[in-house]
Amino acid sequence: MIIVVCLNPALDVTHHVDAVDWGGVNRPRAVRARPGGKGLNVARTLHALGADVLVLGLAGGITGGGVEAALRERCVPAAFTPVAGETRRTFSVVDDSRVTAFYEAGPAISEEEFAAFRRGYEQALEGAAAVVLSGSLPPGLEAGTYATLIETAAAAAVPAVLDTHGEALRRGAAAGPAIAKPNLTELAALAGPAASSALAPPADGSADLATAAAAAGQLRGAQAVVVTLGPDGLLAATGDGCWRARAPAAVTGNATGAGDAVAAALTHGLVLGRPWDERLRHAAALGAATAAAPVAGEFRRQDYLGALTAVTVEEVR
Amino acid sequence: MIIVVCLNPALDVTHHVDAVDWGGVNRPRAVRARPGGKGLNVARTLHALGADVLVLGLAGGITGGGVEAALRERCVPAAFTPVAGETRRTFSVVDDSRVTAFYEAGPAISEEEFAAFRRGYEQALEGAAAVVLSGSLPPGLEAGTYATLIETAAAAAVPAVLDTHGEALRRGAAAGPAIAKPNLTELAALAGPAASSALAPPADGSADLATAAAAAGQLRGAQAVVVTLGPDGLLAATGDGCWRARAPAAVTGNATGAGDAVAAALTHGLVLGRPWDERLRHAAALGAATAAAPVAGEFRRQDYLGALTAVTVEEVR
Repeated sequence: MIIVVCLNPALDVTHHVDAVDWGGVNRPRAVRARPGGKGLNVARTLHALGADVLVLGLAGGITGGGVEAALRERCVPAAFTPVAGETRRTFSVVDDSRVTAFYEAGPAISEEEFAAFRRGYEQALEGAAAVVLSGSLPPGLEAGTYATLIETAAAAAVPAVLDTHGEALRRGAAAGPAIAKPNLTELAALAGPAASSALAPPADGSADLATAAAAAGQLRGAQAVVVTLGPDGLLAATGDGCWRARAPAAVTGNATGAGDAVAAALTHGLVLGRPWDERLRHAAALGAATAAAPVAGEFRRQDYLGALTAVTVEEVR
Repeated sequence: MIIVVCLNPALDVTHHVDAVDWGGVNRPRAVRARPGGKGLNVARTLHALGADVLVLGLAGGITGGGVEAALRERCVPAAFTPVAGETRRTFSVVDDSRVTAFYEAGPAISEEEFAAFRRGYEQALEGAAAVVLSGSLPPGLEAGTYATLIETAAAAAVPAVLDTHGEALRRGAAAGPAIAKPNLTELAALAGPAASSALAPPADGSADLATAAAAAGQLRGAQAVVVTLGPDGLLAATGDGCWRARAPAAVTGNATGAGDAVAAALTHGLVLGRPWDERLRHAAALGAATAAAPVAGEFRRQDYLGALTAVTVEEVR
């Protein structure tokens, strides 16, 4: 069983509007609402891959209940620790030309609430093959939260995959997860402005090794670092070597969903014991298939299988 | 007991943003969510006035459950007929300069769902002193729906107050409610472009009688028509004569909430057997107090009591 930790889940609401009347009243022609937050995207992707998954997190209020109900509807097993605050919504307005997003911060979590979550987490680790820690931390939880959860997992011999940003990523990496999976922007933010140029997307491929080295340097402690490069694929710096995976064609689309799909595929490959090159092939293919889908956490199986044969993975020396 | 029919309730979500980044990602500094839709505003106002109220309506999905929970929290008695579709949200973005609103249409209601609602409605009418029919009709219900519900109430000797717009208002009025309560815009829309000029807000007061006559003419069948004139107060054309109520000072603010407060106060006055001039005094005062409050369906008691003594009501001949 794979535990997916989602401390700050969301209900993602999307309004499709023909042409937004800013300052006026709009009547969207289509409305979508689904469980969101990076962790829930990862969980839904793992579930779609046929993995045995359990979402653990914090949920409260009307929206928390809504997220739980929506996961039940999708048959994704979840056990949320109840919190007094209201689970956040993300609200996106999509018109012909652009997307405007409004992200609520999420409820402030008390020490007691997080202690209750930890008890459930420790219990679940006993039967877990891996744990994914994904997404932002809600208000009230300090930046070392993921580091603590990774250490707890390590004590139970459960490998962790970390996908977050900022100080939570740096400190989480220092706690020694099996894989840290930043994107280039997250990595550049950690490296600071001086080092950012070394992390520019390797357009001609020549900077691969430098980027990989920089990635590994920024996230000291992680056993492997996989950097998502958007349409340029993946770059992995692992204890077994460095790899570069390229998707068949430049894929544009849902970047958030693609990153979450990569995290899901890497975790799945870890649990299945796939060698690194195969792990990366699956991750790049699933990322490409998910980027092509309109909704984060979803992909068409035929896109995934098609991409699998087209992805190239090469070792970088 | 006063029945408030709310066939298309909503969860009203408001995001307060300092300066909206259209096309970008915004992180609202404050978020509010509360039960909305005109009917629920009326119900909350009646509840705040100390009236015995029962909300009857249609609710479904996550958002429907959320609306029910939020009403329970506010101790407003409600019995919603469950529907398969998802209750709508309204989403408003407030920044320094303006409000941008996104109104979902609401779930499509099937014949079976509405039949189930009607059974509950007929049962509740047995113990009812009045019924308020307020707000838009959800998709699937035809424009004669309120007319039918008014006729059913009349058969049970229960007077009805109607607050809606368009064809549902015209046909509802024809069914003979005790009071129809349009605003000037709704009245002008019914009258058509040719007659609209006669319905312009009576700036100098001289057009009062013409407006009242036009109002009564447009809503043939209603026993009384009360037109809300925004900051200019109210105009009533009743079987007992015509009245004009003016609020103490030009009140700007939450117009939707003010109109709903007027509907609530008119219903309350009807049930208490207040004479028309007193009904209108209370309605204008409550409308002004509610317009001054930031949230629809809420008012400060001291504003209401203060406005009561300052409202002027004069008969128009």
